[in-house]
Amino acid sequence: MRHDLAQCLAGNDPLLIEVLEYALFGGGKRIRPLLAILSARICGCDDDAIYRLAAAFEYLHVATLIHDDVIDHAATRRGREAVGAKYGMAAAILAGDWLHARSMYLIGHLAGPEGLEVFCSATTAMVDGEFLQLRHVANPSVSSQQYFDVIERKTGRLISSTCEIGAIFAGATPGQREALRTYGARIGAAFQVIDDLLDYLGDQEATGKKTGNDFIEGKLTLPLIHTLGAASATDRSTISDCILGDRDDAAAYATICSMMEQYDGYATARKTAEELVAGGIGALDIFRDGCQEIYGLLRTLALYILSRNS
Amino acid sequence: MRHDLAQCLAGNDPLLIEVLEYALFGGGKRIRPLLAILSARICGCDDDAIYRLAAAFEYLHVATLIHDDVIDHAATRRGREAVGAKYGMAAAILAGDWLHARSMYLIGHLAGPEGLEVFCSATTAMVDGEFLQLRHVANPSVSSQQYFDVIERKTGRLISSTCEIGAIFAGATPGQREALRTYGARIGAAFQVIDDLLDYLGDQEATGKKTGNDFIEGKLTLPLIHTLGAASATDRSTISDCILGDRDDAAAYATICSMMEQYDGYATARKTAEELVAGGIGALDIFRDGCQEIYGLLRTLALYILSRNS
Repeated sequence: MRHDLAQCLAGNDPLLIEVLEYALFGGGKRIRPLLAILSARICGCDDDAIYRLAAAFEYLHVATLIHDDVIDHAATRRGREAVGAKYGMAAAILAGDWLHARSMYLIGHLAGPEGLEVFCSATTAMVDGEFLQLRHVANPSVSSQQYFDVIERKTGRLISSTCEIGAIFAGATPGQREALRTYGARIGAAFQVIDDLLDYLGDQEATGKKTGNDFIEGKLTLPLIHTLGAASATDRSTISDCILGDRDDAAAYATICSMMEQYDGYATARKTAEELVAGGIGALDIFRDGCQEIYGLLRTLALYILSRNS
Repeated sequence: MRHDLAQCLAGNDPLLIEVLEYALFGGGKRIRPLLAILSARICGCDDDAIYRLAAAFEYLHVATLIHDDVIDHAATRRGREAVGAKYGMAAAILAGDWLHARSMYLIGHLAGPEGLEVFCSATTAMVDGEFLQLRHVANPSVSSQQYFDVIERKTGRLISSTCEIGAIFAGATPGQREALRTYGARIGAAFQVIDDLLDYLGDQEATGKKTGNDFIEGKLTLPLIHTLGAASATDRSTISDCILGDRDDAAAYATICSMMEQYDGYATARKTAEELVAGGIGALDIFRDGCQEIYGLLRTLALYILSRNS
């Protein structure tokens, strides 16, 4: 990633370079580039250009994080100042646009029109997912299907496109491409379910995020949606009142947390994530015999999603 | 454009559709799509897909306007509420990202990797130009070369890429492609010079923008840069004081306006725009005999830039 950046940033404004480097080298988990590389490798590709292709997924991911943080007026990200907080909104929006364009260029250049189509459709779906999510804010009757529709667009599509484009780059068979797309979609959804669980249960020091944020913002996620479905009529009405009332109130937060414990909301969401990961790993069966080492890495990566605490 | 939108928006969130339609059908001049179409036609292309390709340039242009208005906290655009003012910052940033991605998809799909490379390099250059411009804010010693470096990136590159990609789509010869790129770069720069003149001299009703905005924001444009270069030492120091002082002060604005009159700042900038347009038209000489009708349209379009009042 440093190599691609150095190459294409030469001659650009020094502040732009600084902002991009700050945004990109802030210690993210780099799951997306790794997925792109492993997906290409498992389809038999050993072309080193895959490293440049892989950078594109991190560029796009970081672009969306930067814009999200501007939208949320977030002060911090990954335990340090958010780009917008540090360099101002103008620099943040523009740097996001730059990364966006650069990622598209890399994908189109390296994975061709077919790869670009998958990538752009994932990108527009992410925007659609954000709008869908805004539509559901503070709606106690949102269904788990609606929740999955949102996270498929918001998170699943980019991760599945990462795996699929890795396969396209490698010249994969349709069956291999489909398997990697499914793997990516499943573990992407699991990733978001765990993220949403960490919003309630995470260690603030490890995640760098305040717990309870989703509830305050009126984002209903799987543990709460499950709890609403399982609760008695009285408890459901209590929860609805909390959702529709002052969500900044600590007592309201304590109430919904105890309800989620009582009705196994956390445990059910976790079980769903485990099933998604198992489904994702299952989709890779066709690679099991041919390429055990990389199969093992993709399996480990999927399982890591369940164990992560940040 | 409506056709492409209808096709790709089916199934998206209704609010996203509303925001995009509001942003795209707000009565822009549509110069960029027209340039793409004429550039392809003058190179002999009569493929109707050029209309879809042309939409991409309007998408990208509108995406940058939406993001710019968020950055500038602009209340209005083209005489009506700006997207961000009407739908909120989140919707505006996201809709811009959607348009950005869709434009990249169309270019990659229709103009291939070569077209995408030109397009993405124009997009990243636009961001770089904005950073460069921020760097020069309220700097009385900014040179006209630095001014042209900024506007080449901010405005010229997208317009020249529009013409060049039209040529690429048409399968143009290298000479045709070069001619159209040069034409686009020259008229793009002229477009910005006129825009900057209108910021001082425009009719607020026609432009929909408050005059004197650039000065208040500390953006030094050609009329003022020329005036600083031509002024006596005393006058130069007076102007510098106005630039470095309270730029919201009406007296300061009146002072720099009268200086620009006195030192022919407006007239010189206008002459520069005329020379740029003449240079742009001159670059089209190779088309003069072959395709008189479209040559005439591109010439008229270039001259329109000089006559526009909004």
